[in-house]
Amino acid sequence: MRAADTTLAVVDADLTFMDQALALAARGVRGANPLVGAVAVGRDGAVLATGWHRGAGTSHAEADAIATAAREGTDLAGATMYVTLEPCNHTGRTGPCAQALIAAQVSRVVYAIDDPHAAASGGAETLRAAGIEVVKGVRSDEATELNRRWLGAVSSRRPFVTLHLAQTLDSRIAAEDGTSQWITCPQSLADNHATRSLIDAILVGSQTVAVDNPRLTARDTDGSLLAHQPLRAVMGLRDVPEGAAVRGTDGKFVHLRTQDPAEALETLFSLGVRHVMVEGGARIIAAFLGASLVDELIVYQAPTILGSGKNAVSDIGVHTLADAQHWDWDESDGGAVRRLGNDLRLHLFPAAAPATTLSSKEIH
Amino acid sequence: MRAADTTLAVVDADLTFMDQALALAARGVRGANPLVGAVAVGRDGAVLATGWHRGAGTSHAEADAIATAAREGTDLAGATMYVTLEPCNHTGRTGPCAQALIAAQVSRVVYAIDDPHAAASGGAETLRAAGIEVVKGVRSDEATELNRRWLGAVSSRRPFVTLHLAQTLDSRIAAEDGTSQWITCPQSLADNHATRSLIDAILVGSQTVAVDNPRLTARDTDGSLLAHQPLRAVMGLRDVPEGAAVRGTDGKFVHLRTQDPAEALETLFSLGVRHVMVEGGARIIAAFLGASLVDELIVYQAPTILGSGKNAVSDIGVHTLADAQHWDWDESDGGAVRRLGNDLRLHLFPAAAPATTLSSKEIH
Repeated sequence: MRAADTTLAVVDADLTFMDQALALAARGVRGANPLVGAVAVGRDGAVLATGWHRGAGTSHAEADAIATAAREGTDLAGATMYVTLEPCNHTGRTGPCAQALIAAQVSRVVYAIDDPHAAASGGAETLRAAGIEVVKGVRSDEATELNRRWLGAVSSRRPFVTLHLAQTLDSRIAAEDGTSQWITCPQSLADNHATRSLIDAILVGSQTVAVDNPRLTARDTDGSLLAHQPLRAVMGLRDVPEGAAVRGTDGKFVHLRTQDPAEALETLFSLGVRHVMVEGGARIIAAFLGASLVDELIVYQAPTILGSGKNAVSDIGVHTLADAQHWDWDESDGGAVRRLGNDLRLHLFPAAAPATTLSSKEIH
Repeated sequence: MRAADTTLAVVDADLTFMDQALALAARGVRGANPLVGAVAVGRDGAVLATGWHRGAGTSHAEADAIATAAREGTDLAGATMYVTLEPCNHTGRTGPCAQALIAAQVSRVVYAIDDPHAAASGGAETLRAAGIEVVKGVRSDEATELNRRWLGAVSSRRPFVTLHLAQTLDSRIAAEDGTSQWITCPQSLADNHATRSLIDAILVGSQTVAVDNPRLTARDTDGSLLAHQPLRAVMGLRDVPEGAAVRGTDGKFVHLRTQDPAEALETLFSLGVRHVMVEGGARIIAAFLGASLVDELIVYQAPTILGSGKNAVSDIGVHTLADAQHWDWDESDGGAVRRLGNDLRLHLFPAAAPATTLSSKEIH
């Protein structure tokens, strides 16, 4: 049987097992990594092992399923592996999945959508070259929808953008006299630092550097540096002072001399950044929101009121309520709304389409 | 035995049963009504019936316990009634509790704190005159703390003030062009109207009347009027146009020609208003917050961003972060943070004292 034929050999069971893989994928953490699920099925149709991707730095879904099978002494030789994304061909923080599948002696791989990363793609070819039957395109619409935001960032060749806001109930990020440390509680700060330790870069405006002189490192609650440190990127035309804390001494600093968020992201992408967290200030926040270049929004909201001072978000080009930016609650990863100490942590992603107009019930 | 002696006759069992009454009280809905609990105990120390107050228009705690006993055929003759607030002596929306206790033939009433309402107090005297032994002051500190906000409003002879905010994620209540209908979703609007149907008055600024021409009635989702309609109060120096919807035709309208929230509340109190909800606009909201005249805050927050337009809260006299107003999450009545349709509903009350300064962990 030739590869050209097998790509069409989709049977009902394939749809069923791919649905199962998609359900597993959805257990993962949405964000800068794709949601991927995998199901290994024996020749008799029995599920032998399952897996899913739990976020940056953890096993890919198919590697997770293979590891589970190994732990349980289950032989995957001759099995079919269903996976929602083309197995990768590269060695990143985890080994290439195509090689792991070959080593596990599976005889068939069914996947939903191609891996859009140039460095990762080619997994299907590698598998075929090793004599494994490969079927692609099963439940591709569903898999695409599941990873809409991630695919969008990858296909536009820019980093995935997380926007971080730490605000009062009345959405202020600094009081009238400029004081802003700290709006949010220690638990929110710790959560923010944990996120910093998972991403490739943090970005702030040069105005924020001038005013707050932040270090932008990822630190533990005792102040010690966490294992992974993101690149510290400062954006804006203003010079970054020689003595600015953000420069550090580890070389993980870059000044992006632009006011255009798209240009900043392009440069970061060329530097290898695939996930950046924008932390402020207000002008930078508005620039990214206004350009619709935010993939994920994390808001820490303290139960305090200032009444004046700096608004978290300034002009984003919206002048009337009908044009307001709509966001959806992201229920993955512990829920869209969580209490952190005395604050609320809100997790949102851009709504796919403008929300339908509310019925004008005239009940004011 | 004379009344003068019995006031000191507190035994361990009294403390235990009053604690139980306080726990029942806490089940009620915090707000413009006191939290009250009641426990009826037989001569043998057995609990015969319990009750608590469930909010405006529902039975008082002791009446609730008496009704429960009656339903279950339990005779309260000779029993002791423990109640966290002095039994009322007046006939409001429910009958006077002192008379109900006399009719139930209880022989002893133990209560924690006096009823501060002039119209309601005197219950203890009425009971004593009927030959019932009355003990007061048991667990008075705990009962006072439980009803701190309510007692504060009553003792200052002003209505209890609920502040209503309907805002975007970035705390805007109108877009740049003035459009504001509707920031929040139909479920939030319905919740707001349900609250309107429980209170004595709604208050808005004359500017809001000029711009939005709201009706301020309490309406069902089909637009029909709910059974109870609050007084519609407009505050400010600007005239309320003859044709303004807020005037209505039912006579439940008042124009308070003042810009001073304390003066507005004094007038409302003299009109019999014991619970008012302030609904806007921004200047009125800031005036009440700035004067620390808000007892309860209900925020409906839509997952939308405007970036410009009108801030929900303007200057409240706070210029530096250390002076920010702190609020506590109110977990009574279904939780401090709830999803209503696509919005969040936040429920807060003023923090008793400034929050302790956060340890400066220097983890920025």
